[in-house]
Amino acid sequence: MTETFALNPVLAADTVPVGDLTLSQVLLSKDANYPWLILVPKRPGLVEILDLSEEEQEQLLGEIRQTASALKRITACDKLNIAAIGNVVSQLHIHVVARRQTDAAWPRPVWGTAPPAPYAPDARDQLIADLRKALPLAP
Amino acid sequence: MTETFALNPVLAADTVPVGDLTLSQVLLSKDANYPWLILVPKRPGLVEILDLSEEEQEQLLGEIRQTASALKRITACDKLNIAAIGNVVSQLHIHVVARRQTDAAWPRPVWGTAPPAPYAPDARDQLIADLRKALPLAP
Repeated sequence: MTETFALNPVLAADTVPVGDLTLSQVLLSKDANYPWLILVPKRPGLVEILDLSEEEQEQLLGEIRQTASALKRITACDKLNIAAIGNVVSQLHIHVVARRQTDAAWPRPVWGTAPPAPYAPDARDQLIADLRKALPLAP
Repeated sequence: MTETFALNPVLAADTVPVGDLTLSQVLLSKDANYPWLILVPKRPGLVEILDLSEEEQEQLLGEIRQTASALKRITACDKLNIAAIGNVVSQLHIHVVARRQTDAAWPRPVWGTAPPAPYAPDARDQLIADLRKALPLAP
């Protein structure tokens, strides 16, 4: 019996899909306080980065680099925050967050700090369009 | 004029040294609430992971894997938290934290959540000794 990958329902509810890289789904958090991407490697049963093979870890590192570079270039942010935490949602996911010194949580981390703010649909769609242009997503 | 690496004084004050890997210094946080390692790549002027060459990023990934594996095995923790944040101390440093469901911050992240707790010296020395045995540190 082969277990298949399915996105955790909490991650699905809190994000909108940007697209698929080779290993990871790229999701945009619905929280407009920060341009905030989440990478979810499409393998079933993952909790820790250590659960990936070394080859998959290197692929993930490359995809973190691609998304972080794109997010930095698009947002002209002050700092990137990159983290695998997973204390609440255990399905392995990596946060790539563009931080500004004027954002709702600065200098604290984003998790559990400020109430989420809704996106203006146009701003969200523009960010997603910019990300789709910048990332080598599957067609 | 060649800039040389120097550990940020805040990182130095908040940690005790464990040893040196090829790229990174390995530090143990003085906060006994969580077994908490910090990797600091020994290159001057780094802020983001993206500031490292791709080869150095892969070296860093390998060192994260080594320290995370050792910490997990030594502490039998429930979850690893791995993060590059750097909003307060900008010198590039990677947190590798062993989390338990009974720890002072669970399930929240460790940063800014619970007041730091001092180590009993014997417990700290034992953890450092275990880490030194488990990691391929420079002599």
